[in-house]
Order: sequence, then structure tokens, then C-alpha cells
Amino acid sequence: MNVFFNVQPPKQALAEILGRLERDLSVETILTNKALDRVTAHDICSPQPLPTFRRSTMDGYAVRAVDTYGASSSLPAYLSLVGEVPMGKKAKVEIESGQAVIIHTGGHLPDSADAVVQIENTQLINEQEVEIFKAVAVGENVIQIGEDIANGDVILPAGHWLRPQDIGGLLSLGIVDVSVAARPRVGIISSGDEVRSPEIAIGPGEVRDINSYTLAAQTIRAGGEPVNYGIVKDDLNILQSVANEAVQETDILVLSAGSSVSARDITATVIGDLGEPGILFHGVAVRPGKPTIGAIVNGKPVFGLPGNPVSAMNLFDLLVIPTIQRLLKCKNPPKRSVVRARVTRNVAGVPGREDHIAGKLVQRDGETWVEPIFGKSNLIFTLVNSDGTLTIPLDSGGLTIGESVEVRLF
Amino acid sequence: MNVFFNVQPPKQALAEILGRLERDLSVETILTNKALDRVTAHDICSPQPLPTFRRSTMDGYAVRAVDTYGASSSLPAYLSLVGEVPMGKKAKVEIESGQAVIIHTGGHLPDSADAVVQIENTQLINEQEVEIFKAVAVGENVIQIGEDIANGDVILPAGHWLRPQDIGGLLSLGIVDVSVAARPRVGIISSGDEVRSPEIAIGPGEVRDINSYTLAAQTIRAGGEPVNYGIVKDDLNILQSVANEAVQETDILVLSAGSSVSARDITATVIGDLGEPGILFHGVAVRPGKPTIGAIVNGKPVFGLPGNPVSAMNLFDLLVIPTIQRLLKCKNPPKRSVVRARVTRNVAGVPGREDHIAGKLVQRDGETWVEPIFGKSNLIFTLVNSDGTLTIPLDSGGLTIGESVEVRLF
Repeated sequence: MNVFFNVQPPKQALAEILGRLERDLSVETILTNKALDRVTAHDICSPQPLPTFRRSTMDGYAVRAVDTYGASSSLPAYLSLVGEVPMGKKAKVEIESGQAVIIHTGGHLPDSADAVVQIENTQLINEQEVEIFKAVAVGENVIQIGEDIANGDVILPAGHWLRPQDIGGLLSLGIVDVSVAARPRVGIISSGDEVRSPEIAIGPGEVRDINSYTLAAQTIRAGGEPVNYGIVKDDLNILQSVANEAVQETDILVLSAGSSVSARDITATVIGDLGEPGILFHGVAVRPGKPTIGAIVNGKPVFGLPGNPVSAMNLFDLLVIPTIQRLLKCKNPPKRSVVRARVTRNVAGVPGREDHIAGKLVQRDGETWVEPIFGKSNLIFTLVNSDGTLTIPLDSGGLTIGESVEVRLF
Repeated sequence: MNVFFNVQPPKQALAEILGRLERDLSVETILTNKALDRVTAHDICSPQPLPTFRRSTMDGYAVRAVDTYGASSSLPAYLSLVGEVPMGKKAKVEIESGQAVIIHTGGHLPDSADAVVQIENTQLINEQEVEIFKAVAVGENVIQIGEDIANGDVILPAGHWLRPQDIGGLLSLGIVDVSVAARPRVGIISSGDEVRSPEIAIGPGEVRDINSYTLAAQTIRAGGEPVNYGIVKDDLNILQSVANEAVQETDILVLSAGSSVSARDITATVIGDLGEPGILFHGVAVRPGKPTIGAIVNGKPVFGLPGNPVSAMNLFDLLVIPTIQRLLKCKNPPKRSVVRARVTRNVAGVPGREDHIAGKLVQRDGETWVEPIFGKSNLIFTLVNSDGTLTIPLDSGGLTIGESVEVRLF
């Protein structure tokens, strides 16, 4: 057994884990239109310039700019109309000096034209002739080939979390599939003699499993894939066997311990025996969730979270989600929304400990306040009844009523 | 044809739509553990008290409080140990005056006990006797039946967007399935003679379809289900036929027009002819995205968005997403993160118009700045290269370099 009690501030605990990750996720190639909320595995370069042809940015007339020089409303230029560029087609009509063709926004500029006069600055005299009231410069109202994106430009870097506009950008260039990091597989083991599946009726002394489901949901939101190993009794051999299997099959392993001392001891022993280098910290200077274990086993991260569901969710948020994002090598992971609010009561801090307190937002006199929610048992309903969490930093004496704090919304 | 030009400020345009929605989504009953990011259809009440039994909140000894009165480290109370409550079981051992039983966090309090002494305030003398150094009051370190949740309590209201902890809370009460609003079906039609499917090679004058995919991705993020009707030519009859079918089959219909004037006219005509009451506004006082149409057809919302992908995404965000959330009757929809940043340059405003400008966050001297990204053509890459949007309100003269603004992150 490789357990030593080594309490770390949360940032340092996380750094210990992130500094020792040794395994890369595999890369999958998937359809771009199914790649929302996935993370690019490589830099993606443009296979073409954009636009691919000289495009008009206005509805109006394609012209030779020189033919409009000096034109004004008092002294218009007169051009002969020689046709129209249809949308979606190559311009087939060309112009000579003194001529113009009708063109639409997004239309293909004829090779012989070099500018577009906006329709608002013109007046059609008849079907053959148009008055021009404003001079245009060469290139005016025209996007040149490659002006937006040059051929070979990096359009998305590796490690980019794909948003709706990124999907659109890739498809605009004809990139219909994309290499992304595989979703990290997060193994979840819920242990405890008192823990039962939610489907069955429970008796005195029993509680229903929560952590298997809350941690799975957090995994999904963070871009991972949960792999549930079910509920395991507080039995060293059984837990060891399930954990050994799970650490092989997944990229991150998370155990949530039963609530008794002996259950926590068994979890610590199992994690300590999983492999080298083993446990990096046992205890995080945070509440709720202090009795948390972090380990690396053959380059893979393993976490032992407390059985209490509020503590487990808190430490999953602080340690496991950043680990998922690091495995994904993601540079722009989605962030929880933050709002500022005034705290409705004094909350004491404890030097050397970071406190995370659930809170409910309330409106008072046009201001946003946050009401800390305390529950005797840190029951999951503390979080159900809350809108977000507020933090009392390690070095803080606490919060004073009316103080403005950041609330991270769920 | 029922088209009149009626430009509305964005808030009023949205209110016009929301005020006339007449159709309810259907209700589906699904497994709770698959209900992440769905929205409850009804109030959900607890079918049981929580906890269902008197639970210990500490590791220690279950006692009669009266036996500990006056106990201190200088004058301990001595109690006889008569057994242990195993985790996950009903307490079978009862105590008499002067007796105690070992109990663990979460354990079932024997009927004859009324408090728990924390293990830290005790010392085991031998296997039969324990010293108590601190008195406990009746009920101390015990959660009573129903103390967290009473039987019949509303635990989640109708219209609640389900977060990880909500899934856990429901399952903790044995609620293994849940009634949720069906995902609103959002029909998406992309039109324009120049628009081609991303899979095929394009020629001069042609562009690849973006809006079908960006708007679908925005729909998914907002909790809706996209239904793609493909790319339709700028032909009144064909567009009319596809739109008529789509408005029957979906809860919200979104058309994005081609970029030419005639394409926009066709879209307006088609929307105007879909049914009563028809078009509510034609034009929104916003940039980009002014030429937007909002209509109600037999109680269903229909939007005609500009073909430009940046404009289409902007108006989808301003009008369609809130409509999806209103159909879901969602009271706590996820919000885009907001950060404050200083703007790197002056940006002019236009009185009477709300401007939405894409921006990239940059760090300078430890401060967050936002660099507005302007593109000649409002190409999708304006958004790809940005982290969020900043807004110049209707009544503002613009932004001054160094001014602190809110940036809504994507």
C-alpha cells in the first residue's frame, strides 16, 4: 500500500496530475457536420483561397472604374447596359469602355470589370442605359480572390473546440470531414455498502446511487465519454478487480468512495495498489471534498473522490474536468458563465482552505444578490436548489454581507 | 402577398413573435439518466421524504444525549459499547441508558438513540467501553427523516433545464423517468441559386452552403432538433412548396435567403403567403442582419434570415434561440458566458440601430482587451476568428478606445 496523507491546495493538486499525463488520445476522422463540440486534432489549413472568384459585395453594376471618374449627381456618367451576371454562374458577358452589366451581391465579377457601383448610386434610364451618380475606385465593392482566406492559411489550430461557426467555416471550404481527438473515456466506479441502484426500492440504511449519474453528466458536458462500472461493495478484492479492469479500459478513472471510514480506507488502498507512480496527493485543501485522492498509474490519471455527492461534483469540477480538457489538448474549452452578485450574509473562511459554496441568485431592488445555500448533510439538493457556486479563496478571511463576488453558474 | 416593410428594434421584434406563439410542444417521458439538457414538462414532487431514515452525519457513536450531559475532557462520560451499525443495513442493536453503538457517516440511527458523538471527541478504552469528552444535544449529528426533502415537496419546477445535479437529485429519490418537453423541431431551408452542397466542387459564381449547418448547430445548443430541408433554388414555386411542407412538419421554420435582391423578394413573398396572420415585421434595427422577416403562421413562428452567414447566425441568436426557449417554457436556459474587456479601437454607432460586432480577446499588460473583427464581406471567418460578440446599443454613439464592454463568448 502506497498511501501517505499529503494535503495540497487545489491548483497544486491539479498541476501534479497535469504534469504527469503521458498518454495521447487517439484521433478519429468524422463528418464535419457531426463535429460540434469536438476538438480538432491537427492544425487545419485551407485547401483553396476564399473567395475563389472576384465577388461583388453589393447589388449594382459591374463597371470599369475609369468610366466613373468625376461622376456625381449633378454630372452623372452614362454607361450602356450590356447584360446581367446571373447568380451562381460564371460571368459570360464582358464589358468594353463605357459599358456596364447588372450584378448582384455575391455575383461573379466579369474579367473585364474592376469595380461595382452600388444600385443606390444609379438610375436606370431605359433598358440600355444607366446613370452613375458616384465615382468608384478600382476594386471598390469587390472582394478579390483569396482576400478572406489565402490558399494554405491555417484556419483552425489544433486543440480547437468546434463551435457552430467553425463547422460553417470548414464546410465553406469543402472540408467535409475533420480529424478530432477521441472523447476521453472516463471510467466511473461508485462504491459503498449502503449504495443501491436508483431503480430499486431502498430500505433503512440504504441510499440510491447518485455519483454514477452526476459524474457521467459532468463528463459529457466536458467533452468526455462516461463508462459506468456500476456500484461496487466495500470489499477490497472486488473493488481491486473492478478498478484494475477499468484503469486498463479507460483514459481517466474516477472512484467515489462509500461514506464510512473503512470504505474510504479501502478506496485509498485500491488506488495505491493500481500501479506506479501511484498516489500523488491524498487530501485537497478545499471544502467540500477534502478527502480526495489523486494518482497517476502508468501515465493515466486516477481520482478517488468522496462519496458525498456535493463533494464529488465539486472535486470533479476542480480536478477531473481540467484533466479531460488537457487530454483533449483543448485551448478554448467552454467556460461556465460567471455573474457578479452581492452576498446576502457573512460567510466565514478558513485560512489555508478554499471553500466552494452553492448559491441561489435573487433580485433585490434591481441588484443581483447571491444567497449561500448550506445543508447539514451536503445533500445533492443543495446543488439542485442553487444557480452556481461562489469561492472563498485559500488566503481569504471570508465574505462580508453585501460584498460583490463572482458566482460561477452551473 | 402580405409584405410590408416594418423595421423593429430587436427586443420588440422578438416580443411580437413571443406574444403570438399558440402551440404547445408535446411531452415525452424519458429515462432520467438520459435527460441531461432537457426541460421538465411539469412540476416534479418528491415521492418520499429524504432521508427515509434517521442518518448519522459523522463517524462516531450513537448514544442517548442525556448520557453525555456534562461530559468534558477533564470529566469524561463512560459508556458501554454494545455493537455496531453496519453500513447499508437497518440498525438491529438497541441501546439502554449508559450504552453506545459504533455508527458511520450515513449510518442508520437505532430507534433508541437520539444523537451521535463524533469519533474525534471520544477515546476507546477497550472493546467494551468508550470515553466521551464532549456532551451532545438531542438530535446532534443526526439528520431527521424528511429534514432535507419532505414527502410531496416540489423538487423541480416545470420548465427547468436539467443539469447534472438535477439528474442526481431525481435519481436519489428513485425517480427513474421524467416528463420533458419534446425538443422543438426547427426546420431549416437554405435558398439561393449560387448555393451548393459542401460535398461538391464549386465553380465561379458558386458558394458552399453554410447556413444549413451553422443554424443546425445553434439549434442543437439551444435544446432544439434541426430538420434540414436542403438547398432550394430561387424559384417561387419550388420554395413555396418546400416551405409549405416544412411549416406543417416543424415547430419553427427558418429560411435563409439567397444574397441577391430577387432571392430576398422571393423569400418574402413565400413567407407572406404561408398563412395567417403572416408577416409581423420586415427588417430589424440591427447590424448585421437588418433584412430579417418575422412571421406567425397558424401560431407557428417563421423567420426569414439574410443569406449572409454572419447575419444569419446573429439573428438566429437574437430571435430564434429565445423562441426555442419560450416553446420549451424554459425558465433557466444556459447563458453564454460574458467577460468584460476594454475595446482596442473606437467603434462608431448608428443612432436607432443595435450593432453586434465580433471580437477577439487579447491580453495586454495583465488586462483583457477585445479587438473588433471587421470583414469586408461578413464572411463566416469573421466569427471563426472571434471569441465572442460585443454590442453597441440602439441609443449609443459608439465605443471609445479603452472603454470597458461586455463580450458574450460563443
